[in-house]
Amino acid sequence: MREVELMGKRAKAASRKLAALGTNVKNSALEAMASSLKDSRDRIMEANKRDIEKSKKKGLSRAFIDRLTITPSRFEDMVDSILHIAKLPDPVGGVIRMWRRPNGLEISKVRVPIGVIGIIYEARPNVSVDASCLCLKSGNSVLLRGGTDAINSNLTIVDVLSKAAICAGIPGGSLQLIKDTSHRAVEVLLRLDKYVDLIIPRGGENLIRVVTEKSKIPVIKHYKGVCHVYVDSEADLKIAQEVCFNAKVQRPGVCNAMETMLVHKKLVRKFLKPMFGRFKTAGVEIRGCPEVRRIVPAVKRATEKDWSTEYLDLILSVKVVSSLEEAMNHINTYGSGHSDAIITTNLNSARRFLAEVDSACVYVNASTRFTDGGEFGMGAEIGISTDKFHARGPMGLEELTTYKYIVYGDGQIRE
Amino acid sequence: MREVELMGKRAKAASRKLAALGTNVKNSALEAMASSLKDSRDRIMEANKRDIEKSKKKGLSRAFIDRLTITPSRFEDMVDSILHIAKLPDPVGGVIRMWRRPNGLEISKVRVPIGVIGIIYEARPNVSVDASCLCLKSGNSVLLRGGTDAINSNLTIVDVLSKAAICAGIPGGSLQLIKDTSHRAVEVLLRLDKYVDLIIPRGGENLIRVVTEKSKIPVIKHYKGVCHVYVDSEADLKIAQEVCFNAKVQRPGVCNAMETMLVHKKLVRKFLKPMFGRFKTAGVEIRGCPEVRRIVPAVKRATEKDWSTEYLDLILSVKVVSSLEEAMNHINTYGSGHSDAIITTNLNSARRFLAEVDSACVYVNASTRFTDGGEFGMGAEIGISTDKFHARGPMGLEELTTYKYIVYGDGQIRE
Repeated sequence: MREVELMGKRAKAASRKLAALGTNVKNSALEAMASSLKDSRDRIMEANKRDIEKSKKKGLSRAFIDRLTITPSRFEDMVDSILHIAKLPDPVGGVIRMWRRPNGLEISKVRVPIGVIGIIYEARPNVSVDASCLCLKSGNSVLLRGGTDAINSNLTIVDVLSKAAICAGIPGGSLQLIKDTSHRAVEVLLRLDKYVDLIIPRGGENLIRVVTEKSKIPVIKHYKGVCHVYVDSEADLKIAQEVCFNAKVQRPGVCNAMETMLVHKKLVRKFLKPMFGRFKTAGVEIRGCPEVRRIVPAVKRATEKDWSTEYLDLILSVKVVSSLEEAMNHINTYGSGHSDAIITTNLNSARRFLAEVDSACVYVNASTRFTDGGEFGMGAEIGISTDKFHARGPMGLEELTTYKYIVYGDGQIRE
Repeated sequence: MREVELMGKRAKAASRKLAALGTNVKNSALEAMASSLKDSRDRIMEANKRDIEKSKKKGLSRAFIDRLTITPSRFEDMVDSILHIAKLPDPVGGVIRMWRRPNGLEISKVRVPIGVIGIIYEARPNVSVDASCLCLKSGNSVLLRGGTDAINSNLTIVDVLSKAAICAGIPGGSLQLIKDTSHRAVEVLLRLDKYVDLIIPRGGENLIRVVTEKSKIPVIKHYKGVCHVYVDSEADLKIAQEVCFNAKVQRPGVCNAMETMLVHKKLVRKFLKPMFGRFKTAGVEIRGCPEVRRIVPAVKRATEKDWSTEYLDLILSVKVVSSLEEAMNHINTYGSGHSDAIITTNLNSARRFLAEVDSACVYVNASTRFTDGGEFGMGAEIGISTDKFHARGPMGLEELTTYKYIVYGDGQIRE
């Protein structure tokens, strides 16, 4: 475990140099990393194959093996994503605000890297690429701790990337993979508050819970998304239909998909019946409150647990509400503070929903599926924070920085 | 302990209403609170007297009793600070950025209150006033947990303030004091992550350490300030003298005072001898590295521990360094990331120091004593964060908010 600590120490030392590097050096390094990754295609694919075979022997689920697999098109995506990150603006050094005090002091609030970021993730080897490159571009050292079953893929990828980075002038220690895949190594990492400034867990609920409980270091959680669409009494029914269908069906396995649809009681017959028909055709299973089942008796009963469940599947819970207040209360009680939408033509209802629903992203007349760094125009994202601290919602490069105050004077002293 | 949980629940419910309140309502409430506090002067002074007598009987230190005591001028300061907070701009609703996406979505990143803030503090009763009013102005509910020995003062102050607030239209539950002063009550509070969004401990190192270790809720630490002034080889010696003297002597008991002075070896004779003379007159005890003691043998030896000690007193550790790098390494190793200054006329050295010293506030040719919400022009501060997360350096009203994304569409769905 001494090894993990030494890696932390190296990462911290590297982060000081990395913070002062120019954008050009970082961008050339990223380009070199992309081309080196491309050149090492066979080696990486071969390592990935070994991981897949081992996982199959272990009898891991098909979904797990799918996440683990680097297909040819996923390999191309990894290379492209590095080149894309190289082209994004560098957040470091950006001046957030600058002002002069009556005594002549010139104060600026300037964006700086956070320092050392620990990323704990599960099966997907592309996280090794994305997380490394986003951290490097934002001037942070990164300590990667991937899952046991992806260890060969991760070892090869990080070996290729870090060698290319060092050749291009990035300080050694900026990009390291913790080779020890035991739980103990994670625990040591989570207590390295002396060297590591931030932990980002990427994976299922269970991983996130364990990390949050054991960490001495601040954690940014990318928790579940129990997203709602509320169809208000004054909704445009065409928009309501399109948005609800899109939010549930377009890609059900992601955190910004709708899990619960709330419908105002006035619209029950007019909206619900045709909507359910459309959902049925798409293979969506509905679980409804008693009111819903009174109208469409074939619908399954939603239990209390359903209201806070992230299905990540073609399943939808549906509740009839009698007011905007009831809808907002339901969302603030059972939601996960991720993304929620109202469909309405009433300005006042829209404004109240936006103000009173306590979620990272609140929408009027649009699908919750837009909560995404790319869709928001951030260029790239390291994830979607469901925390209120430091970063909320999609986290891009800017959210991987903090700030410092720089003060120029000419001898000012305090009276 | 059920009581603390119920208070948390009430605070959360209140915070939802508070978040939607207009600035005028909050400002009138603050004015009503100030006038009610003024009218209750005798009651508060009498309660404070009881606390002081009890503390004297318990044999608590003079410094402790001084912090506990509400003098007539401190009472006036409390009233004035409320009126001052009422006049500050409301951070809630401020638009950080607003943009339109190619698909027509209009996204704004808007400042919103954090929710419920728990403040854990020790002897000073004025924290009850300041923290309550800063939280109220920024739209947050507050749960106060003051020290045992100030309980009568705190009970009376919070009773007066919360009644006045409720009369002025602030939702009940927005401002509550945890009456149970046992450690157990703090532990319950620190695990109430269901209701409480942020913990701010205000007090000594020990309090902060205990809170950080036990909390399931994010904590913003206001840790110690081991602040440095580095006198560079190309320093203006007049400025160096004035700034070093000011940073150490003007108010030694605060976190932004200088604790260690670093001096370039070229200046040892020219700068150090007269400087030490001036410090001696002011009663400052010097603890020096071997190099310092070679020149001024009367100086005490600085131990390894001295370099990371916050004296909060007329004591100063002094080290001779042979380069800017050595000075920066020393600061990044032993400092607390609070406030550090360089005195130099060399532009390149100034720029390197600002970029490479990893502290909340970095100064060129000015005293570290300026790290303060008031001096920075924030109007008021709840403390000075030595964390890198969410808020760094002086924390004003803006730092008591987070943000959400508000998205207006007209039926956009994701392809």
